[in-house]
Amino acid sequence: MTVETLSADSNAVETPEALVARIAADGRAAQRVLARMSDAQKAEALRAAAKALRADEAAILEANAKDIAAGEEKGLSGAMLDRLRLDAERLAGIADAVDQVASLPDPVGSVIEESSRPNGLRMSRVRIPIGLIGIIYESRPNVTADAAALCLRSGNAALLRGGSEAVHSNHAIRAAFAKGLEEAGIPAAAIQLVPTQDRAVVGAMLTAAGLIDMIVPRGGKSLVARVQSDARVPVLAHLDGINHTYIHSAADPKVAKEVAVNAKMRRTGICGAMETLLLDAQFPGSAEVVSALIEAGCELRGDARARSLDSRILSADEADWDTEYLDAIASVAIVDGLDAALDHIAAHSSGHTDVIITKDDEAAERFLAEVDSAIVMVNASSQFADGGEFGLGAEIGIATGRLHARGPVALEGLTTYKWQVRGTGQARP
Amino acid sequence: MTVETLSADSNAVETPEALVARIAADGRAAQRVLARMSDAQKAEALRAAAKALRADEAAILEANAKDIAAGEEKGLSGAMLDRLRLDAERLAGIADAVDQVASLPDPVGSVIEESSRPNGLRMSRVRIPIGLIGIIYESRPNVTADAAALCLRSGNAALLRGGSEAVHSNHAIRAAFAKGLEEAGIPAAAIQLVPTQDRAVVGAMLTAAGLIDMIVPRGGKSLVARVQSDARVPVLAHLDGINHTYIHSAADPKVAKEVAVNAKMRRTGICGAMETLLLDAQFPGSAEVVSALIEAGCELRGDARARSLDSRILSADEADWDTEYLDAIASVAIVDGLDAALDHIAAHSSGHTDVIITKDDEAAERFLAEVDSAIVMVNASSQFADGGEFGLGAEIGIATGRLHARGPVALEGLTTYKWQVRGTGQARP
Repeated sequence: MTVETLSADSNAVETPEALVARIAADGRAAQRVLARMSDAQKAEALRAAAKALRADEAAILEANAKDIAAGEEKGLSGAMLDRLRLDAERLAGIADAVDQVASLPDPVGSVIEESSRPNGLRMSRVRIPIGLIGIIYESRPNVTADAAALCLRSGNAALLRGGSEAVHSNHAIRAAFAKGLEEAGIPAAAIQLVPTQDRAVVGAMLTAAGLIDMIVPRGGKSLVARVQSDARVPVLAHLDGINHTYIHSAADPKVAKEVAVNAKMRRTGICGAMETLLLDAQFPGSAEVVSALIEAGCELRGDARARSLDSRILSADEADWDTEYLDAIASVAIVDGLDAALDHIAAHSSGHTDVIITKDDEAAERFLAEVDSAIVMVNASSQFADGGEFGLGAEIGIATGRLHARGPVALEGLTTYKWQVRGTGQARP
Repeated sequence: MTVETLSADSNAVETPEALVARIAADGRAAQRVLARMSDAQKAEALRAAAKALRADEAAILEANAKDIAAGEEKGLSGAMLDRLRLDAERLAGIADAVDQVASLPDPVGSVIEESSRPNGLRMSRVRIPIGLIGIIYESRPNVTADAAALCLRSGNAALLRGGSEAVHSNHAIRAAFAKGLEEAGIPAAAIQLVPTQDRAVVGAMLTAAGLIDMIVPRGGKSLVARVQSDARVPVLAHLDGINHTYIHSAADPKVAKEVAVNAKMRRTGICGAMETLLLDAQFPGSAEVVSALIEAGCELRGDARARSLDSRILSADEADWDTEYLDAIASVAIVDGLDAALDHIAAHSSGHTDVIITKDDEAAERFLAEVDSAIVMVNASSQFADGGEFGLGAEIGIATGRLHARGPVALEGLTTYKWQVRGTGQARP
């Protein structure tokens, strides 16, 4: 099976725009059916999809083996091959995650607010699906199932465009999903995989305003930057996680040390990892925090005052304050008080997750109010920036834009609303 | 005073992009001050602005007289001159509207939801201002005050770009606003008017992603279309109001007649006006509804079956089903039942406001659920599509996009949220 034969009409000459228009129309038609489905029907479809993922284990692992072989031939890095690789345990995890999404509450149909007007009109704002969501992602095949499950649970159709490295795995996972959908009476076109790896199709998706309602990019910075720069369709994403942990003068030294080390070192490559440590000049435990980070294996790059704390701190240059290392590296600066910390964060934060460590409630509340990031935390590790940890059950991603949804985005962020007005014959005077 | 002298540094060579970057930076700095203001301070600033608008009556009417004189010289239509014209009564109305916005509840700081996690973290989602809002509008000087008031009340800075016809009026209104702001200790740059009528500045505003957080166009279809097509900044708008009123077989004949006539004829030029009447083939009172519309002065353009109801109905062509007349004209079609009405609406609605007239609750609920417009109504005139009528106190506009805010948008639609997380030293396992 070659990729080309997966296209519905691969012999026809079809421009990328025409291809996207055709599959988007199929997706939109399927979404209108999906929008009328009950909570129970959507949950049943997801459980059927999870079952099909388990039943299709052999086919999916065989498809994945092809991707791995091709990746090895192409010389993909070990880290990339690891992200790409499926085994029985990982596939079981993917199916379990689909079951978990099935058990989340359905946001569609919930009433956000209701009111009655003096003229007797009754107004309600009711949650509805957004419509057709485009997901553009890289080499992790689990995104195919995760994104499909979240879209389906919230009544949206999905147009999935995964990385070419994972093409066989993605098609096999999508095929299992299609079985689950069909068993539940939902058109398989509700969850589509773009049938070609032609890169021009990504461009056509990004400009398909009116056909695709929202794009969610999942992947590295260059992918997100390209999507944000080229899209004419609304995008839900974050570009960087340049996250600050500010140790206030009144921080508990033990909390400061534990949280700073966790925020950087628990997993260094995730978007919620700390990238810059701000130490208040009046905080007495700074040398210990620095030492704990270095001993945990973190390279620190500091300004001159920070370097005076510990000779193992390297010299930072201006670019360090705006760098997302995604590695066992952090920048460190000494700041003179809360206002200086707020200024540094306003100048350098990417608006993802910023943290203050303090026992001073007034300082904590000022930080929470004045730092303008999607997530602001007091006395907690920025690594909690995750939909699961926030109690959302899952996440399609973390958004740092200012409109629609911010921070961890899950089912509610995949819905919008309409106004329903019930009258008894009112005409406007 | 010429327009050019209104620019801060009109002698310098400054590109439109540099101009927008400079004034946007001023606006963003002022917004950070505004974001820290209390509800009472913002309300006080608005009341001071309203007072200044009344105190500056002579200067504002003099400025408006210049615009009117220039407009007459340019040969503006009577309708345009009327939209442009201010008198003591209209100006008092503008000042009163600012006072009314001052009395609306401040959405900023309200907690959307709160939860505690098993690990003790407390999560809250809190409303915050969006930031800097660009308003691009045409010749109505009242928009200057209305938009400024709504932005300010919700803690946003505004960058206003009005039509060249109203330039003197807009600057005079903005000058009065600035006095009110300064009296309340808010930097005047919170409400700025673009200091040049150079059209390239509009283009620079539309592409100022990261500097301007949202654009709201207020005006005719060509303005909105240009903004939607060129903007790289999120846009809150509606392009068309192709609104349907469907008279179901079980409609009350009296309600059908009154609501249809009101929906079209109360004011024919507003975006909530009915443009297409769908008559169910089984509704017995269709001829009377048609007759009432014609006798109210409405030109009807119908399909063949509709024309058989009344010889005064003209012949519709295909374009009529997609036309927003904004005039005493409506298209009329006969449909065979609810599903046919839903299909017609799905094919032709602009997603603004669609209405069913029926006494059948099941049909009403299906219509409310399945019509995918920002506003769906039962037994009420589409002319109620207005923020004031919805109980929002005012509106910055009506949006038909799918993300962020839909339907009438007022203060809440000018806010976003952030997540605040309060911990006691939690590290993520």
